Amino acid sequence: MKIAVLGGDGFCGWPTSLHLSNLGHEVHIIDNLSRRWIDTELGVQSLTPMDSIQERCRIWKEVSGEQIHFHLIDLAKEYYRLRDWLAEEKPDAIVHFAEQRAAPYSMISERHKIYTVDNNINATHNLLVALVETDIDAHLLHLGTTGVYGYSTVGAPIPEGYLDVTIDTPTGPKGMEILYPTKPGSVYHMTKSLDQIMFQFYAQNDGLRITDLHQGIVWGTNTDQTKRHEQLINRFDYDGDYGTVLNRFLAQAAIGYPLTVHGTGGQTRAFIHIQDTVRCIELALRDAPESGDRVKIFNQMTETHRVRDLAELVAKITGAEIAYLPNPRKEAAENELIVKNEHFLDLGLNPVTLQEGLLEEVVEIAKKYAHRIDRSRVPAHSAWTKEIAHRVNHDPEGKHLKSVS
Amino acid sequence: MKIAVLGGDGFCGWPTSLHLSNLGHEVHIIDNLSRRWIDTELGVQSLTPMDSIQERCRIWKEVSGEQIHFHLIDLAKEYYRLRDWLAEEKPDAIVHFAEQRAAPYSMISERHKIYTVDNNINATHNLLVALVETDIDAHLLHLGTTGVYGYSTVGAPIPEGYLDVTIDTPTGPKGMEILYPTKPGSVYHMTKSLDQIMFQFYAQNDGLRITDLHQGIVWGTNTDQTKRHEQLINRFDYDGDYGTVLNRFLAQAAIGYPLTVHGTGGQTRAFIHIQDTVRCIELALRDAPESGDRVKIFNQMTETHRVRDLAELVAKITGAEIAYLPNPRKEAAENELIVKNEHFLDLGLNPVTLQEGLLEEVVEIAKKYAHRIDRSRVPAHSAWTKEIAHRVNHDPEGKHLKSVS
Ligand SMILES: NC(=O)c1ccc[n+]([C@@H]2O[C@H](COP(=O)([O-])OP(=O)(O)OC[C@H]3O[C@@H](n4cnc5c(N)ncnc54)[C@H](O)[C@@H]3O)[C@@H](O)[C@H]2O)c1
Ligand SMILES: NC(=O)c1ccc[n+]([C@@H]2O[C@H](COP(=O)([O-])OP(=O)(O)OC[C@H]3O[C@@H](n4cnc5c(N)ncnc54)[C@H](O)[C@@H]3O)[C@@H](O)[C@H]2O)c1
Repeated sequence: MKIAVLGGDGFCGWPTSLHLSNLGHEVHIIDNLSRRWIDTELGVQSLTPMDSIQERCRIWKEVSGEQIHFHLIDLAKEYYRLRDWLAEEKPDAIVHFAEQRAAPYSMISERHKIYTVDNNINATHNLLVALVETDIDAHLLHLGTTGVYGYSTVGAPIPEGYLDVTIDTPTGPKGMEILYPTKPGSVYHMTKSLDQIMFQFYAQNDGLRITDLHQGIVWGTNTDQTKRHEQLINRFDYDGDYGTVLNRFLAQAAIGYPLTVHGTGGQTRAFIHIQDTVRCIELALRDAPESGDRVKIFNQMTETHRVRDLAELVAKITGAEIAYLPNPRKEAAENELIVKNEHFLDLGLNPVTLQEGLLEEVVEIAKKYAHRIDRSRVPAHSAWTKEIAHRVNHDPEGKHLKSVS
Repeated sequence: MKIAVLGGDGFCGWPTSLHLSNLGHEVHIIDNLSRRWIDTELGVQSLTPMDSIQERCRIWKEVSGEQIHFHLIDLAKEYYRLRDWLAEEKPDAIVHFAEQRAAPYSMISERHKIYTVDNNINATHNLLVALVETDIDAHLLHLGTTGVYGYSTVGAPIPEGYLDVTIDTPTGPKGMEILYPTKPGSVYHMTKSLDQIMFQFYAQNDGLRITDLHQGIVWGTNTDQTKRHEQLINRFDYDGDYGTVLNRFLAQAAIGYPLTVHGTGGQTRAFIHIQDTVRCIELALRDAPESGDRVKIFNQMTETHRVRDLAELVAKITGAEIAYLPNPRKEAAENELIVKNEHFLDLGLNPVTLQEGLLEEVVEIAKKYAHRIDRSRVPAHSAWTKEIAHRVNHDPEGKHLKSVS
C-alpha cells in the first residue's frame, strides 16, 4: 500500500512510519515540524537526541534499503498543497497523527488555547475536505484519545465509541445507539471531541472511510525498528508539558527526581506501549470500513492503571521517592475506568503489558541520556484555571513535597 | 445593561440591537461586515436596500435619541483586539450572532467549507478564551440552530439541549442526562455542534455563564423598531444560498416565480418570527445562568411546519405556483419534528404565529422592492455532494418544473 503518515516526525508517527515501511509499504511522511518548533519555544528537548527527519530517513534507507519520503506541509495552513499532493500521489491509506497533542500545552495561555484549536480543527477539517475534493477513497485512520470519554463516574465499561441507550418516547422506551457523549477535560481533549463530530459528518455526507483510534497514554520509546540504529531513536518527552505520566516517572527515576504525582494520584488512566501502537495501526489498516459505513471507533489501549499505583511500582523498581504535588489540572481526584478493547484483541493484538523488564529498559535509556535533562523543566507548570495557578504557584518547585515512599 | 451584539449588522443582529437599545440598554455592535462582503462575492444583495451600519446607527440616533456603537472587529482573526475591547468595555452580556450562517453557502466548494469551519470555530473559541482571560463574567448568549438535532426519526419530542437516557451498567440500568447527540446535516450545522462542545468545556472548566439558543428558521423582516424609519429596514435574503425557506417563498410569490420546493417538501422544520427572535433574546438575557451552572439551552422556535404545507399556504394566499425541484441537499425526504419550547413559554413568550396577515405583510415588502431581485439568483445551486450536483445540474434552471398548484 501507499501510506501517508501525517505527523510522521512525532513520537508515535516516526515508529509507525518505520513499522509500515518495514512491512513493505510505501511510506510518505507529511509533517510541518511544528513539534520541533515547540521544543524551541519551550526551551526543552527530547531526552533522546533526535536527528532531523531528513537524516532519519537517510539512515533508515541505509539500514533497511527502504525509502521513506518526507514532505513539509502544514495541514492547517496549506490546504491547497495538501490537496494537490493527495491528488498526485493517491495514497491508499492516511494515518493522521498531525495535531497538537499535549493537554498541558493547550492550557498554558490564551495563545496556546487558540493555537491548539486553530491547528487541530483546521488540520483535520482540511484533510477531510481534501479527501472529498480529490475523491481518492483513501482509508483515513485518525488518532483520538480515550481522554475524550471524560472519565465519567457512571460505572459502566467504556465502549468503543458508540453507546447503547434507551430513551422514553410517547410509544414507550426505545433503544438508540449514539456517539459516546464526550466530556473533554482540556482544550486539547476538546479538539478530539470536535474531530469526532467532523468524522461523523463526512462519513455520512460523503461516504469517507474513517477509523478513529481512541488511544490511551503511550509509554516506552523503542520499537523493533527504532532499535536497529542509534540514529533511528524515538522522541522521548520528559517535561511538564509534553511528557506523559508513565514515561515521566521513568525519566524522573533515572535522574533521582521524586516522582511527581498530581493530587492523590487517584486518577485511573488507560495505557499502551509504543510497540503496540504501531501494531494497532497495522491491524486497523487491514480492517478498513466501506464507503457508507459509520466511523469505525477502536479503543487503542491495553490496560488501565491508577497513577499512584504506577508511581509505587516505579518507586519499587528504582528506589525513587514519590512527591504528591498540588494538581494543576481540573479533574476528579479519583476515578474508576474500565475500557473495552475487544476490537483489537479480535484482530489479533497480543498486548505488551507493564512488565518490570520493559520499565527498566526505559529507565536505562533515560539514564543514558540523563545529562540532557533540564531538571527545572521536569515539574508541570501549566494550570487549568487562574485560581488553580494561584494555588499551585505557592509551591511551584515542589518544595513542600510530602515524600511518602 | 451594557450589551455587546456580535454580528449586529446581520439579519437577526440588527433588529436585536434596535430592540435592546429601545429597552434602554447600552448597545455595542461588533461585526467584521463579512456578510456584506459575501453579498459582493455572490453578486447578490438584500432584497431590501440596507444602508451602511454607520448610517443605520446615525438614523437610529435621530429616531430614538439612543446611541448604538459600532466596532469593526473580526472575531476569528483579531483575538487580541477583541480581548482588549472586552477588558476595556466590560459588557454585562454578549449576544453572539457572528458566524457564517448559511448551510448552502457552507457547501458551495472546498473554499466555502474551510471558511465556514475556520470562521465559526475560531470566532466562537476566541470569544470564549477572551472571556476567560479578561475575567469579566459577562453572560454569553449564543445563537445555535434546531438543525443540529438532525431531524432524527426516533419519534420522541426534541428536548431543550439535554436528553435523559438509560444505560446498562454491571449494577443494572442507570439514568444519565446527556447533551443531545447531534447529527448535523451540513458543514454549517456541524460548526454549531462543535460550538456546543466548546461551550460545555468552558462552562465546566472556567465557570463561564453561557446560554445557547437553538433557533428555528427565522421568517419575517420587520420588527417594531425597524418599522420606525425606512432606513432602519432589515436585511432580507431571497437567494439560493442565504434565503431561508419561508421568506424565500414569500419573495418568490411577490415576483411571480414558482415556489421552489426541494424534493417532496416533506421536510418538517421549526420556525420563529423575527419579532419573537428579538423578544427571546430579551427574555434569555433576564434568565442568566450562574457561574458553575451547566450551559442553559433553549429551543428558540414557536412552531413546526412541513415545507410543502408552507408552499401550499403561500400559494393559496398569493396564487403562486409550486415547483418541485430535485433536492440539492442530502437529507431525509420526509421527517416528523416535535420540538419542546417550554423555557421561553415559561418566561412569558407570547408567540407570533404564522398568520396570513403577517405573511402578506412580507409579500408586500418583497413586492415593493421586487425590482431589486435578480431572478437568476433565486434557485439554490449549492449541492451537498458531487453526485447530487451532477443530478441537479441536469435541471439547473428548473426547466422541467412539475407545477402542481
Ligand atoms: N503520545 C500519547 O501518549 C498519545 C496518547 C493518545 C493519543 N495520542 C495522539 O496520537 C497523535 C500523535 O501523538 P504524538 O505523541 O506522536 O505527538 P507528537 O507531537 O510527537 O507528533 C505530532 C506530529 O504532528 C506534527 N503536526 C502537528 N500539527 C501539524 C500540522 N498542522 N501540519 C503538519 N504536521 C503537524 C508535529 O510536527 C509532530 O511531528 C496525536 O494526535 C495525539 O493526540 C498520543
Ligand atoms: N436566520 C435564521 O433563520 C437563523 C436560524 C437559526 C439560527 N440562526 C443563527 O443566528 C445567527 C445570526 O443569523 P443571521 O441570519 O442574522 O446571519 P447574518 O449572516 O445575517 O449575520 C451574521 C453577522 O455576523 C457577522 N460575522 C460573521 N463572522 C464574523 C466574524 N468572524 N467576526 C465578526 N462578525 C462576523 C456577519 O458580518 C453578519 O453581519 C447565526 O449564528 C445563525 O446561525 C439564524
